[in-house]
Parts: sequence; C-alpha cells; structure tokens
Amino acid sequence: MTQDVYDVIIIGGGPAGLGAALYASRDRYKTLILEKYFPGGQIMTTDRIENYPGFESIDGASLIMKMQNQVETFGTEIKTSAEVTGLKKLDSGLIQVVCDEDAYVTRAVILSPGSSYRKLGAPGEEEFRSAGAGVSYCGTCDAPFFRDKEVVSIGGGNTAVEETLHLAKYASKVTMLHRREEFRAARVLVEELEAKAQAPDSNLVIRYNSVCTAIEGDGKCQSAKVKNVKTGTVEDVPCDGVFIFVGTVPNTDFLKDSVELTEAGFIKCDTARLRTSMPGVFVAGDCRTGADMQLITAVADGVSAAMALKEYYRDPNWWTAKEVEDMQPSGF
Amino acid sequence: MTQDVYDVIIIGGGPAGLGAALYASRDRYKTLILEKYFPGGQIMTTDRIENYPGFESIDGASLIMKMQNQVETFGTEIKTSAEVTGLKKLDSGLIQVVCDEDAYVTRAVILSPGSSYRKLGAPGEEEFRSAGAGVSYCGTCDAPFFRDKEVVSIGGGNTAVEETLHLAKYASKVTMLHRREEFRAARVLVEELEAKAQAPDSNLVIRYNSVCTAIEGDGKCQSAKVKNVKTGTVEDVPCDGVFIFVGTVPNTDFLKDSVELTEAGFIKCDTARLRTSMPGVFVAGDCRTGADMQLITAVADGVSAAMALKEYYRDPNWWTAKEVEDMQPSGF
Repeated sequence: MTQDVYDVIIIGGGPAGLGAALYASRDRYKTLILEKYFPGGQIMTTDRIENYPGFESIDGASLIMKMQNQVETFGTEIKTSAEVTGLKKLDSGLIQVVCDEDAYVTRAVILSPGSSYRKLGAPGEEEFRSAGAGVSYCGTCDAPFFRDKEVVSIGGGNTAVEETLHLAKYASKVTMLHRREEFRAARVLVEELEAKAQAPDSNLVIRYNSVCTAIEGDGKCQSAKVKNVKTGTVEDVPCDGVFIFVGTVPNTDFLKDSVELTEAGFIKCDTARLRTSMPGVFVAGDCRTGADMQLITAVADGVSAAMALKEYYRDPNWWTAKEVEDMQPSGF
Repeated sequence: MTQDVYDVIIIGGGPAGLGAALYASRDRYKTLILEKYFPGGQIMTTDRIENYPGFESIDGASLIMKMQNQVETFGTEIKTSAEVTGLKKLDSGLIQVVCDEDAYVTRAVILSPGSSYRKLGAPGEEEFRSAGAGVSYCGTCDAPFFRDKEVVSIGGGNTAVEETLHLAKYASKVTMLHRREEFRAARVLVEELEAKAQAPDSNLVIRYNSVCTAIEGDGKCQSAKVKNVKTGTVEDVPCDGVFIFVGTVPNTDFLKDSVELTEAGFIKCDTARLRTSMPGVFVAGDCRTGADMQLITAVADGVSAAMALKEYYRDPNWWTAKEVEDMQPSGF
C-alpha cells in the first residue's frame, strides 16, 4: 500500500480529470490521476473536433496529448490501467481510494470517470466509429460534417429527437428509426419532429417499429440494414452516416456504496460547487447530474472542482454551507 | 431601427460571449454579438496564458482571434463599438436590446459583459500591465511566471490573502501591502497568512498601513513605491512584479433596471442553467454570481448558456422549472 498522502486524487483522466489536474497541480497540490485505461476517455475516438473554442479543428487524441503534457509539466502524476473499486472515509478524515491491487490516501477526491454512449451492438458500429467513417453518438458535435449528406438516426428519447431535428438542419435527408410505435420523448419535441416530417418536401422520414441490424460499407458507412420488427421485412437504407442516440451510461458502478447516485447512475451534486454526498469528494464532467456533456464544459467542470477544493482545504465545514441561495434571483 | 429578429443576442464579445456564439451559431441560430469595444475583453491584455487546457502557452489576443474566426465561420454576426444601454421585454415576448444609436429585437439574450479588475490608479500600473512587464491582477493565472522572483501584492480581502499565499509558493519573496491595520479577509485565511509570515526564514512580509503610490522600472517593473499612511515614510521596495488584488467590478451598470443584481453588481442566476430574473435572458462568465473567474470557465459558461437556450425556445415555461432539486444529494 502506498503511504504518501495526496492532496487530491482525480479518478478518470478524460477532459474533466485533465482540467482538474491542470489547476490542482498548478496550485502546487500533490495530484494523482488514476485512469482505468489511458488518458482521454471517450473523446479519444473523435477524429474532428470543431467545438472546442480555440481550435478550429483538431482530433481528440492530439488535444488530449496536449492536455496531458500540460498537466505533467506542472507535476501531476498519472497512473494508467488503475481501476478504482471504491472509496473509504478514514477516521482521520482522509479518504482511501481503493484500486484492484493498491490503495491510495488523499485529502480530497475529484470524481471524473466520465460516461459512455450506450452502444447499439450492431455489426459495423465499432468499425465505422473507430475510423471516424460515419458512426457518431453526438449530433451537436458532428452534424456539420454531414452537410448535404444522407444520414440515419436511431432512438426514441429526448436526446434522440433533439439531435435528429438538429441533423435535419444539415443533412440532405434524415431517416429516423425508432423501435417502438411511439416516442418516449417529451410531447412538445415529438410534435416538432412530426411537424417537420410532415412538412412538404421534408428531408426527414420517421420509421416506427424499426431497428438497425447492421451498418455496412466499403471503408466508410454506405448503408444501414433496417428491419421492421412488426412485419419482419429488411431493407438497406443508403446513408453516409449513422447517428446512434440510445442513451448514456455513466461509469459509476464502483461508487454505488460511497456517493449518492441517481437511478440512472449519475453522481448527484450541487451544480454550483460540484460537491457530492461525501465530504471531500467533488465531481466533474459527464458523470454528474446536470452536465452539459460537451468537451469544453467537462474541462471547465474539472477546473471548477479544483477551484472549489481550496474552500474545503481551508475549512471542512464549508462543505455544508448553503452559499448558493444568495446567488439566485428571487423566485428560483 | 433594425427589424430582423435574432434568435439570440449576446452582449459582450469576451471569452464567455464567444463560447456562447460558437454553440448558438453552430446550432444554426441567428446570432449577434454586441461588443462595446472589440472582441476579447479583459484577456486581450494577457501576454501568456498557461491555464487554458489545450494550449501550453498562448497570448490572449491570439486565442481570441482563433475564437473569433471560429464563430464567424458558423455565421455569428459581430458588431463592435456597440454599447448596450438597456433591455426591454416586448408585449410579443421578444426582447428589445437598446444601444446608443440602434435597437435590436431577439428571442433570447445571453449576458456576458464581463468584469474589470479594480485599478489601483498608481503611476506605472497601466504601463507595466499593457506590456505584460510585471503588473498582474490574478495570482492563479500568473504566479508561475514569478518563480524565484520578488513580488509585491496589494489588498486586504479574501482574494488578496489567498492569492498572496499562492504567490508565496512561487516567488522568492512576497511583500504584501495592506492599507489598514487589520485584514477584512476571513479569519481562517488571515491566520494562515500570519502563520506563514511568522515562520522561520519566511519569504512573506506583511506591511500594514501601507499603500503603493507608484510602480517604477525601466521597461519592466523593478520597484514599488510604498508609503506608510501612519508615519508618512516612503520607501522603494525592489520587485519584479506587482499583484493588485483590490476587487473586481462587473460591467453591469446598464442592467440595473432589467435584471436582479447583487449589491456588488453581479448578475444573480441559477448556477445550474444560468437563468437570470428576466425570462429569456441568460448570463455567462465573470459577471454572474458564483463564477470561477477563469478563462476556461467563462468560455464553458457561454457554451452552457447556449445549450440551455434550447430548453427555453422549446418551452418558455421551462424558465421557472425547479429541475435542480433532483440533481442534488440529500442534505444540500
């Protein structure tokens, strides 16, 4: 067991964790990142990012490399292949972070394990995703790359509908697949979607009771195999891209016994200061309630958590201070 | 008067405004930035930024130029030298943004007028600030540039004490000036500061009843003229930098009649969704309550406001939804 006491251990080395590490280590705090695989997380597989202000266009791996170098310059230690299995508050007030084969002791923790897009599990999904050749899980991020192209979108919830409407602003044609007869998205969204689909010369087609069973193409996505689950008929829908909006899964299984989670597994927090239910444990990024799920907001979340850390170091009682009320307009 | 209706008008073209504009215009909303002077705001005068994740080192003007090009690519319109004098809710539900010589109508507004560091008003302050030659208003940002150098810090509040302690981690010597006999900062902070100053071989000296009357040097800061307000004696304190922590002034005078402000002039908001007291008017960046006052957090704030905008477009009643409660752990 390692006996060094860290000022802060950051769990997860994606954009939020790296943002937190930059600020914490630049503040000269002894900072350790524990990363299950390798730094970067979900963004590593993104070929082109156009919505991180400051970079007109950059790939995920290059951006992460820059951030990683930056935090290491300021002294952040990064342990890869380090899977955290739990957190334990010690009698001393310090926190023990337990890994598979090791355990670390720290004054504070920033949780930034991120989330994963729920996969469809269809053949071709992995192949065309990793090559950046047509499979995407984020319309806000990638819609502009499909200007005047044909795409298929998949899903039935709020995000699926919102993102499909967004795609329809760019794509020449959007075919939306939903496996059931009715959407579970908010009524107002569904109405907007249906109105759009029924408009004259609409570029949006909705296919109910339909699932995608495969994504096919030669080097890049060229069509989606679409099966009607009622009739059993299968059809190839030509398309340049497939957008999969079937949910997000926060990587928070290991936290079930330590911090309060929502039913869907997101870490509950006060959005103003990113405190969780466990004093000394902050949260940043996609894994928390209320996250905007964007690259830049994840990075900034990490920075905000690292800023809030200092309040806690100074006065542990700050943890339960209800400082937010004064910030709000009356009526909120 | 211009008759076009914008989807969103962003007031202030600094980092927060540019972050908001990137997302809003990339979402194909008709977006206008009204900027009093020129895009960039406070960060334009910063010579070296090391804490914007992704850039190891960049100057403020270059970073802003990149962001500005980025938002213009997606269709954001920017009007410079456009000073907003007020906001007015129209009977139609739209919002009128009134400028000196013009007025614009929009569905929603994002306020990002920023804030200014309160100036000392001492000779040399402007000269050595604009040349990046020793005058700074942010220890978190600039302390690492003064590693093993001598600095003077000025102020008496929480930020002044925190930032001075931070400076002492880097500088070989810090002389802190406070114009009164006692600090107004939190007791716990003052104790930490005093303990640090009284430690053997401390690199921190506190001078009470002392003000800085001039910053002097040849091309760069070399000394501060320090006057004891009780005895009247004046002394030159050699230093490579002067850090001025005498407060921040949000640029919100023009909003007095439209949105709720704190006594200090910050715009009240719900920190989760950045809504102000006026439906349809969001806020982002240093001018709001609870802001972390960092470059990256300002940019991300703009992005979050642009994301929240969509909820409002979809359903104006969302404005008063108390969605935050479910996000929080019990006891908050």
